[in-house]
Amino acid sequence: MISTLFYKSAVATQPARYVLMASHGIGPGSWISRFWRNNQRNISVIEQGIKDSKLPRLCHTKTYQKLTRNVSGNVVSLDLERMVDSTEDCSVNKFTNRTHNCGELRTSHVDQEIVICGWLEFSRLNKFFTLRDGYGSTQIFIPDELAAEVNLNNIPFESILRVEGKVVKRPKGQENPRLPTGEVEVVLGNVEVLNKARNRLPIDIKEHNKAKENLRLEFRYIDLRSTQLQRSLRLRSQIIMKMREYMINQCGFVEVETPTLFRRTPGGAQEFVVPTRKPGHFYSLVQSPQQFKQMLMSGAIDRYFQIARCYRDEATRPDRQPEFTQLDIELSFTDRDKIMTLLEGVLASSWPVNGEPLKVPFQRITYAEAMNRFGIDKPDTRFEYELQDVGGHIKLNPNLTRGLDEQIFGAYAIVARNPHSAAPTSLKKTLETVSKEHKNCRFVLSAVTDNWLKSSIVNLLGDEVARKLQNHLTLQPGDLLLLGFGSRLETQNLMGRIRLAFYDSLESRNLVPLRSSTDQKFLWVYDFPMFAPNEETGHLESVHHPFTAPHPEDFPKLHEKTDLQVIRSQSFDLVWNGVEIGGGSVRIHDGALQKMVLDEVLQIEHAHLQHLLDALECGCPPHGGFAVGLDRYIALLCSAPSIRDVIAFPKSSDGKDPLSKAPVPISEEEKKLYHIRTVDVS
Amino acid sequence: MISTLFYKSAVATQPARYVLMASHGIGPGSWISRFWRNNQRNISVIEQGIKDSKLPRLCHTKTYQKLTRNVSGNVVSLDLERMVDSTEDCSVNKFTNRTHNCGELRTSHVDQEIVICGWLEFSRLNKFFTLRDGYGSTQIFIPDELAAEVNLNNIPFESILRVEGKVVKRPKGQENPRLPTGEVEVVLGNVEVLNKARNRLPIDIKEHNKAKENLRLEFRYIDLRSTQLQRSLRLRSQIIMKMREYMINQCGFVEVETPTLFRRTPGGAQEFVVPTRKPGHFYSLVQSPQQFKQMLMSGAIDRYFQIARCYRDEATRPDRQPEFTQLDIELSFTDRDKIMTLLEGVLASSWPVNGEPLKVPFQRITYAEAMNRFGIDKPDTRFEYELQDVGGHIKLNPNLTRGLDEQIFGAYAIVARNPHSAAPTSLKKTLETVSKEHKNCRFVLSAVTDNWLKSSIVNLLGDEVARKLQNHLTLQPGDLLLLGFGSRLETQNLMGRIRLAFYDSLESRNLVPLRSSTDQKFLWVYDFPMFAPNEETGHLESVHHPFTAPHPEDFPKLHEKTDLQVIRSQSFDLVWNGVEIGGGSVRIHDGALQKMVLDEVLQIEHAHLQHLLDALECGCPPHGGFAVGLDRYIALLCSAPSIRDVIAFPKSSDGKDPLSKAPVPISEEEKKLYHIRTVDVS
Repeated sequence: MISTLFYKSAVATQPARYVLMASHGIGPGSWISRFWRNNQRNISVIEQGIKDSKLPRLCHTKTYQKLTRNVSGNVVSLDLERMVDSTEDCSVNKFTNRTHNCGELRTSHVDQEIVICGWLEFSRLNKFFTLRDGYGSTQIFIPDELAAEVNLNNIPFESILRVEGKVVKRPKGQENPRLPTGEVEVVLGNVEVLNKARNRLPIDIKEHNKAKENLRLEFRYIDLRSTQLQRSLRLRSQIIMKMREYMINQCGFVEVETPTLFRRTPGGAQEFVVPTRKPGHFYSLVQSPQQFKQMLMSGAIDRYFQIARCYRDEATRPDRQPEFTQLDIELSFTDRDKIMTLLEGVLASSWPVNGEPLKVPFQRITYAEAMNRFGIDKPDTRFEYELQDVGGHIKLNPNLTRGLDEQIFGAYAIVARNPHSAAPTSLKKTLETVSKEHKNCRFVLSAVTDNWLKSSIVNLLGDEVARKLQNHLTLQPGDLLLLGFGSRLETQNLMGRIRLAFYDSLESRNLVPLRSSTDQKFLWVYDFPMFAPNEETGHLESVHHPFTAPHPEDFPKLHEKTDLQVIRSQSFDLVWNGVEIGGGSVRIHDGALQKMVLDEVLQIEHAHLQHLLDALECGCPPHGGFAVGLDRYIALLCSAPSIRDVIAFPKSSDGKDPLSKAPVPISEEEKKLYHIRTVDVS
Repeated sequence: MISTLFYKSAVATQPARYVLMASHGIGPGSWISRFWRNNQRNISVIEQGIKDSKLPRLCHTKTYQKLTRNVSGNVVSLDLERMVDSTEDCSVNKFTNRTHNCGELRTSHVDQEIVICGWLEFSRLNKFFTLRDGYGSTQIFIPDELAAEVNLNNIPFESILRVEGKVVKRPKGQENPRLPTGEVEVVLGNVEVLNKARNRLPIDIKEHNKAKENLRLEFRYIDLRSTQLQRSLRLRSQIIMKMREYMINQCGFVEVETPTLFRRTPGGAQEFVVPTRKPGHFYSLVQSPQQFKQMLMSGAIDRYFQIARCYRDEATRPDRQPEFTQLDIELSFTDRDKIMTLLEGVLASSWPVNGEPLKVPFQRITYAEAMNRFGIDKPDTRFEYELQDVGGHIKLNPNLTRGLDEQIFGAYAIVARNPHSAAPTSLKKTLETVSKEHKNCRFVLSAVTDNWLKSSIVNLLGDEVARKLQNHLTLQPGDLLLLGFGSRLETQNLMGRIRLAFYDSLESRNLVPLRSSTDQKFLWVYDFPMFAPNEETGHLESVHHPFTAPHPEDFPKLHEKTDLQVIRSQSFDLVWNGVEIGGGSVRIHDGALQKMVLDEVLQIEHAHLQHLLDALECGCPPHGGFAVGLDRYIALLCSAPSIRDVIAFPKSSDGKDPLSKAPVPISEEEKKLYHIRTVDVS
């Protein structure tokens, strides 16, 4: 079983270079043919057991076979690669003054005269040095006859060198199996210092010696040389390209660039403003291309997508960036399920991480089911411990419902089976803290013992309820019961948080399997409520956005404006391992309905959206679309802790740029040009 | 000879559909195989003369043959297409509720039950109507038995309909050869109005009935349905995708998204500013990713490109947009000629317009040669009438040099051979107007006659000079002599303008062949001067930008800071048919040199660029790059009069958005959030 596969190894970008991380027991079986089917480039093979496969026949060019086995734990690293013949045009060396890069030399290059360029990574005794670039590292041997004239002792590390030399096999015993180039070295013929670096660089790029993040952001161009960032940025480019190939070449979509200088969208996030030469008049930077893509539908660009730059001034939310990227999609004459299928195709065709192709279709559940089973609208389905609805039992004891209407009362249980019964004090405290934040419901934790029916919980539940619960949940001595009841929505939220906190605790105590960030637990959640009250003002707001169409079955309620909060919309989210990575909806295409929703339900001044209303009224097809947060999605693919790790030049979490120090003061002339003055806050 | 080829016809986006506009006399010759080599998809063929070609063997799928000949003037329209088998998955109909689009039905679909959706384009007598979408138009026939219940008279044009029906051959004599679907029609089974349009739309989409541009921009979503805009936007998406495929898949480039919220770049165009929550502190919107791409080189992303959004507040320049798109490229360990070759590869691989593939390499000439031969740094080489240097002759008469130093004196002639000698008054006036704008040189126009040596011009030139000119230029009776002399640079500029104005005049009088916008007159101009004085202040400024490297031969001059104005840089422009479509350079990679240029030559405060200087000093490879103005380039490809015609939602020429009315006033709360106040100009 392959556990991890990259399109390209961390340091290689030759189109045909792959690194497979595979568990032991690789055979000539189906994984390799699946890998083939999913990768249209040439690779050669590689392993004793699969020498007889048909793969070599598929290779167009002269190939070499090589296997690096690197047993570490129960994981075997398989280096699958097509070795590039020196006579062949290696794409990443095209248009450069090198013949090879620092990651590609192998025994097949022995005796060739080569030129490589890169960063001086390390040198020892003026006998050896290593040269590094974005593709790898190569060892250079300084022959005695050159040692007098070549003195690298005065050349600071990270200086840029150009090396001419001849490839030789390393002497027996000196091979480095951890380095792809580790079987060879280059005997120096000539070295030229192209650009000397400062004597001591402010940060180190080595993984084990990492500086604090802010310092790394300040010297981002140095940090970018690290294996991790090289891999993330190169992988990001590859994934987005695969998405484009699928959208354009396979599905006939048109990529359209829409403006970012626009006017304010009412009812959304805080938008940056841009003053203009017209006094008092401002552009706003778009928070998404939503209005433009709907107008494109009216404009007969019926299959639109864009890798779109979006802007939100959300200084306070963690791990956000003032500018970010989304895969933005819209199409006409479609429906919810078709959009879901399209997105599954996009992700499957660009799926890079697992040797196993992405399994589609994804599971699809309603918002109501998600809340009932997981207490959250973005369930992490990598583990069980689902909520069980025990409302019917709990409400037999009127003391427990405390007068709550049957309609809004709810009770949910999570049962952890033996041997999880012992809850440590830290867990109890955590759960208590969580439960205290939910005022309108109650949480109890109870270890099931032999004479549980005589325990204190029975005082609370009453004899009948406790007995029924014991039967219904088949509680056994050793089990742990987590029970919440009260206002239903709030109890769901509470138990959703309890479920996650409980599993975190089990995981930290090694009582359950670790959740893997590369698990394929994708899930569609649909039929969200259309409106929900703002927590502060109590006014109804759109759960998705104001352009979302209502569920067809709930049209009458919307027109009568009764039960507005139970109206479902045609919106849906895509959830991966408990993280929402995108959302979409079928839109309102009827101008009168859109106006009614804006005016009468949301009370948003429709003058701000007159152009969109006009577009709906001038011949607009039914349409719908989706947006994927690409920074977040790619960070998850790279198992990166923050979206900053997959963005070339991110701002820090407070919106500042440690590199350029932006934002900065501007001149008075510039303020005058834009008719603004800074208001002194002091 | 094929004169125009689109990847896809104006209305078709099936991957395999092509329309060739070809002059008559098409044979089985090489153009078709070249077309094949340049198009990796399947097409079928097509024409009697080439029936025997090998092409059908290359088709993977079931194909059909079809030829539409549409003789108009001496142009034959050849409809090359692969007909899609009904059992085949048509990509543009995937994920929709239609079975076909409005552009694809052919006789091969006869007897099929189909569903199409689109805009009601036209209806007649409740007997016929046409449905249109982005792919074409289809005629629907309403059978008598349905005429009673279907009444389209009340449905406004441009409403959205869904039509079920059966495809039939049109009755003999009723075929419409100008319509790709013109051999068939759909017999209506059922029609549903999906969205009714307003009774009268504010603008018409038909080419012959176009509204003024501002009104079309206000209702852009209607105008987008026009054939022209459909074609431009779909072609734009295709071209940019081909560029990406070449850069990423063929050349191993990495696409990196760089920030647009940055700090001011000193010495460039006016940049938009974005106030932040920190009082008095602003981001600037980047005018190009220049600094970021150079930092990427320091960061070992050694082959970068980006389809980059850039911002400039240039309200006064014609046909500019506040935001625009460039293909932005940078690579390490390269040189000027390699970057030129890379760009030629990018354009050739994405070249869509001519059936003839783009011929590379392009001609390469120095700036000095361009000025000498054409009097301009972006020569239109679609026509001759080159400048001839006659300085040596003119200066024989000291009266003509008027004391100008030999170093800076110049004289250039353009000779128009018989029968162009008769210059109409309008041309004379134009040339006079042009020449009056150049104070430091003189222009004369002279018709060569039998006794020219006795004409008034000899009074001016003197006998000896006139005789030498006559010999040198082999002036014959009937020729026209255009002569300028004076300060050399200004005379070059003058004669460059004269050359263009003169050809315009010849062209308007049908005396010369019309210049075609699709001619392949590409030209590299290199060795630009590094610095030039600002016209107002006289201070030296960078001709390209402050990061451009000097020509290696001129290094000493730069270090000595002598003759700064004659120092050449390693910058170069790409010119197409007289329009500059991009520029690039090898950059300075030496921190000390960059600092010297900023501080001592340009007098730009280097503190603003400290991060870039640091990046150069912390291990930065030699590097260079290029940028292509994509809006302009694609407008030229589409023969569109303005870049607005290839942008989905352009601003008008004064930076306003007629669609949304942006920029608009913002609220006082928002100003408060960003610590700004509008300064009243009254």
